[in-house]
Amino acid sequence: MLIESVQNPKVKRLRALQSRKGREESGEFLLEGRKVVAEAAKAGLPITLVLVREGEEGLFALAPKAAEAHTASARVIEAVSAAKTPQGIVAAARLPEPRLPERPEGLWLALDEVMDPGNVGTLIRTADAAGAAGVLLSENTADPFSPKVVRSAAGSLFHLPILRGELAGLVAAFREAGYTAAAGDLRGEDFYAAPPFPARTLIIVGNEARGPRETVLALCDRRVKLPMAGRAESLNVAVAGGILLYGAAFGTGVRRGPGES
Amino acid sequence: MLIESVQNPKVKRLRALQSRKGREESGEFLLEGRKVVAEAAKAGLPITLVLVREGEEGLFALAPKAAEAHTASARVIEAVSAAKTPQGIVAAARLPEPRLPERPEGLWLALDEVMDPGNVGTLIRTADAAGAAGVLLSENTADPFSPKVVRSAAGSLFHLPILRGELAGLVAAFREAGYTAAAGDLRGEDFYAAPPFPARTLIIVGNEARGPRETVLALCDRRVKLPMAGRAESLNVAVAGGILLYGAAFGTGVRRGPGES
Repeated sequence: MLIESVQNPKVKRLRALQSRKGREESGEFLLEGRKVVAEAAKAGLPITLVLVREGEEGLFALAPKAAEAHTASARVIEAVSAAKTPQGIVAAARLPEPRLPERPEGLWLALDEVMDPGNVGTLIRTADAAGAAGVLLSENTADPFSPKVVRSAAGSLFHLPILRGELAGLVAAFREAGYTAAAGDLRGEDFYAAPPFPARTLIIVGNEARGPRETVLALCDRRVKLPMAGRAESLNVAVAGGILLYGAAFGTGVRRGPGES
Repeated sequence: MLIESVQNPKVKRLRALQSRKGREESGEFLLEGRKVVAEAAKAGLPITLVLVREGEEGLFALAPKAAEAHTASARVIEAVSAAKTPQGIVAAARLPEPRLPERPEGLWLALDEVMDPGNVGTLIRTADAAGAAGVLLSENTADPFSPKVVRSAAGSLFHLPILRGELAGLVAAFREAGYTAAAGDLRGEDFYAAPPFPARTLIIVGNEARGPRETVLALCDRRVKLPMAGRAESLNVAVAGGILLYGAAFGTGVRRGPGES
């Protein structure tokens, strides 16, 4: 069946996934473009619906286990897609529902009120690259399942558990599990003079303009500052998060001996 | 004089600065918003023309030395501005014309075919924060004086010399001046196992999809790779550049003794 009407219920269902409300109501999110659909399928996410543009039926192979798959007109694909120049495939996948692990292990990242979707996506991608085990988000951090975050996370959204909740409570739970909570904070100690970070470290970065909230900072074991050696007042939050994650995982000035973590 | 017509020659002159062609023809670039205008004035850039929205004349104080200043209607300000919700001030400044220093000193950053304006602006801001002395750009890296780069560079564009040219020639000139050229390259040696970087280091990062060109890599003393510990294939170029710059300036695993550089 070729879907040609933007009034078709399946098209309406996909369009609704552009908004957070729509995603929460249906429990699905939107996958746009070949790379994103392929990454989601490879990661084993349950894909509930796929639309492929007429003439590009070869793209069905990207999501072979999709529950439902149809061909659609170029106009329908364009109506569903948030991208300026949509590729030939859009899909819906079920929103993952990760649970807080009982005994978290390894490096984690927490975002406190990070508002820009591009920053949130880049931070999730960077956490994945640094070998982090998961990401925590405060309630009002940009929704990680919005189309722009899905795009900038470049597949990493499907590799890591992403938990959203009241952040102070989540930080407290990690500290009870033996974690060192370390926040990026312009008033903190010099990151490069700081002792190495233990294997169970939670790196916290905050809002683009204000940094982490005081209520979150108050729970942190350490506050660390990246040097501002020139005339810039601050770093972009995704860059700062990347330096902190890679520093905690691989460096910060003190080389770890073999077997240490 | 209140400027109300978008056909006014001054308005046309400012609008032309949205394009690279327009900037090259007039030798000026566009400053949008309070923060950018204030940063440019503070950095001593020659501001050639300022327009302030009717009723917000207090904003003239942000650029007290402007060669020419007028009040304009909200419609004119909107027509000039690239921002979605323009602030009450737009201006033109003369394009800086930095020269290649005869004896460059300190850390420099080079961008080879970095295409995204947001990435270029963030990298310039990060270089400034890391204390770099300047930035080199290949011919077809995104124009640093486009409105989007000006915005994402957050003032750092006015703090550092930004030199655009044939990058292989610039890298060769820096090596002749005693520089170590170190490129970010997924096939390079582990950055965290690498020896420390000398004070005269040129960090090179490349295109978002392809990295630096082979012709540039061939001139580099070192190629360094950031670990990919998870399932992400790569890092965003601005994040990778930030980790390399901060690593070269302050860390990479080997702490420098006092007095060393």
